[in-house]
Amino acid sequence: MKIIKGTITSPQGFKANGFWAGVKRSGKPDLGLVFSQYPCTSAAMFTRNSVKAAPIQVCMKHIKKSDSCAVIANSGNANCFTGEYGFTYAQKMTEITAQALGVKTHQVLVMSTGIIGRPFPYDKIREAVPALVKGLSPAKGINFAKAIMTTDIKCKQVAVQIELGGKTVTFGGCAKGSGMIEPNMATMLACVTTDAAISPVLLKKALQRAVERSFNSISVDGCMSTNDMVAVLANARAGNAIINAEGDAFNAFCEAMDYVCLKLAKDIVLDGEGAERFFEIRVTGAKNERQAKEAAMKIANSNLVKTADYTDNPNWGRVAAAVGACGFGATEKTMRISFSVKKEFININVDMGLGQSAATVYSCDLTHGYIDINGRYN
Amino acid sequence: MKIIKGTITSPQGFKANGFWAGVKRSGKPDLGLVFSQYPCTSAAMFTRNSVKAAPIQVCMKHIKKSDSCAVIANSGNANCFTGEYGFTYAQKMTEITAQALGVKTHQVLVMSTGIIGRPFPYDKIREAVPALVKGLSPAKGINFAKAIMTTDIKCKQVAVQIELGGKTVTFGGCAKGSGMIEPNMATMLACVTTDAAISPVLLKKALQRAVERSFNSISVDGCMSTNDMVAVLANARAGNAIINAEGDAFNAFCEAMDYVCLKLAKDIVLDGEGAERFFEIRVTGAKNERQAKEAAMKIANSNLVKTADYTDNPNWGRVAAAVGACGFGATEKTMRISFSVKKEFININVDMGLGQSAATVYSCDLTHGYIDINGRYN
Repeated sequence: MKIIKGTITSPQGFKANGFWAGVKRSGKPDLGLVFSQYPCTSAAMFTRNSVKAAPIQVCMKHIKKSDSCAVIANSGNANCFTGEYGFTYAQKMTEITAQALGVKTHQVLVMSTGIIGRPFPYDKIREAVPALVKGLSPAKGINFAKAIMTTDIKCKQVAVQIELGGKTVTFGGCAKGSGMIEPNMATMLACVTTDAAISPVLLKKALQRAVERSFNSISVDGCMSTNDMVAVLANARAGNAIINAEGDAFNAFCEAMDYVCLKLAKDIVLDGEGAERFFEIRVTGAKNERQAKEAAMKIANSNLVKTADYTDNPNWGRVAAAVGACGFGATEKTMRISFSVKKEFININVDMGLGQSAATVYSCDLTHGYIDINGRYN
Repeated sequence: MKIIKGTITSPQGFKANGFWAGVKRSGKPDLGLVFSQYPCTSAAMFTRNSVKAAPIQVCMKHIKKSDSCAVIANSGNANCFTGEYGFTYAQKMTEITAQALGVKTHQVLVMSTGIIGRPFPYDKIREAVPALVKGLSPAKGINFAKAIMTTDIKCKQVAVQIELGGKTVTFGGCAKGSGMIEPNMATMLACVTTDAAISPVLLKKALQRAVERSFNSISVDGCMSTNDMVAVLANARAGNAIINAEGDAFNAFCEAMDYVCLKLAKDIVLDGEGAERFFEIRVTGAKNERQAKEAAMKIANSNLVKTADYTDNPNWGRVAAAVGACGFGATEKTMRISFSVKKEFININVDMGLGQSAATVYSCDLTHGYIDINGRYN
């Protein structure tokens, strides 16, 4: 696998665009589109929050045919708790985009992120869609990535290449997310593109696997959003023999998907609201993977662990208390805790001493910056 | 029920003491004792953290006979993750106190709170116990209350009186706790005394009921401690007919216990580390009480809810997202959310729209002060 400098338009046959359509007051980009003019196989995963924003509800219907070839996305307004109008507007966004692109409505996915419960400014988006489509270009992957940013400081993009049967297969990805990040893809949007040829069933499988180890293994503040979604489009332009069974080609595909998703997930944590330090939390010795992950997440979400001072004498008591709070039976006698601290990167390793299973999650510290961003001090 | 100005020595037959024994560097009180020279019925509840500090392990054995008549408590060191020595020292604390008081070792309970994982300074406590016992007085309830404080700003005490069959029955209580507070009595110590006569079974029942609605319904930072404990001693000096069946007398007893525990619990939240605002979160319309409480706690522990600005336009989207994250099926269509804000007191009311059950929990905001207290900024 080769890491390249690139965007969601690095894979063959993808175009993108993004600009300010007037949703955000700030004048920063707030509307983006990515499109493959060649037919795609697609897959997506959604927040498990029972409050699902309108765009999530629309996408859950559209993705059923696994042939999405476009994603329209806005930032600045989450289109959540916006009533029947919100749902109608999310549908209309896919309709007018599909018309302008010359594809079917169900082939367009829609993502929204931003404030919950504000009237959705559909008119501004409707007016902007013709120019959005007209300006599509293979050079504008970064415009899409910028259009989905909210409190993000850094634009999060990644691209890699693998060889499959003599063909070069490219993957591109971008993501937004900084606060309200927890498992189940909280306040996180990600879009992955590839020119690989792969069956819908295996594309879904590769996505689920990659998401579990990446976006579902990070936490900024333990809050789960109403709008999270990750989508992948695969347009088969690389010319590889279609991957329709597990084996070497599928494994290579998964390796690339895992890398893309984990890189974006780590970038989200590094860009966590107010984050100054990055935690990699490794729990071993659990009875099963679920326990390992739950314990690791309990540490990741402990405000005491997130505010502790690691410069001198790491406060492992707070880590032990977090693991103990899970109630899995780890005690003073079974547990081993170690730290390694290298500038702003902090590794917390816990052996629960109960079994053989392990999990790794990623988190960041809780700082004055987080409170400033989310609070009345703003 | 009459609320009186008082302490844990307000009920007849109780004495207390407290002073600085050298555990804390600061010179503030760090060792306390409460004692009834008359036989007691006792009950206690403990943290559900699987990492249990040494004093908790000792008390879990001692409470089995339900006849504790003394509680020795220190602050400044949690005696947790202190190995075999820690356990031995916790036992010895009860032994030497029992000897000095002329009671049996199992009749003494021991509480510790403070930093986890530091060698326990048993020698300082051993040297101080004779003076601690010698100085016991009905006037020194407040000394005990002060001796258990750590990052607490306010000394938390309460006393009430009820009439039972023409006899005046008094209750006193004190508590410590400010950070690391969550259900299951996280980093919270509380001691309740009463001169009522009541059977051990009903005393335990009244305590469990009161704790569930008070100490187990508060959250400062969602972290669960290794040392939490609440104990109640009842010495029958009021002369009421012993309460050994449910009925009017038991109900009156429970009402007083509920008040004492809820007052102390609310004081803990009001004294939350860095807290500037107090949340009362009421969830109704849940399918059952467990769901109602879990949803209320999810709101109480949401860093986004805890940092939101309530001065102008309350961010109910964050509340909705927290409830939705529980996965109980509440959606935009079923939920009703309302706020009432009166200076630093914020009521958050959520009707989940799923059923008939309700729960109330108490929490505080997350501020720069919390980060200063718990972090490297200190």
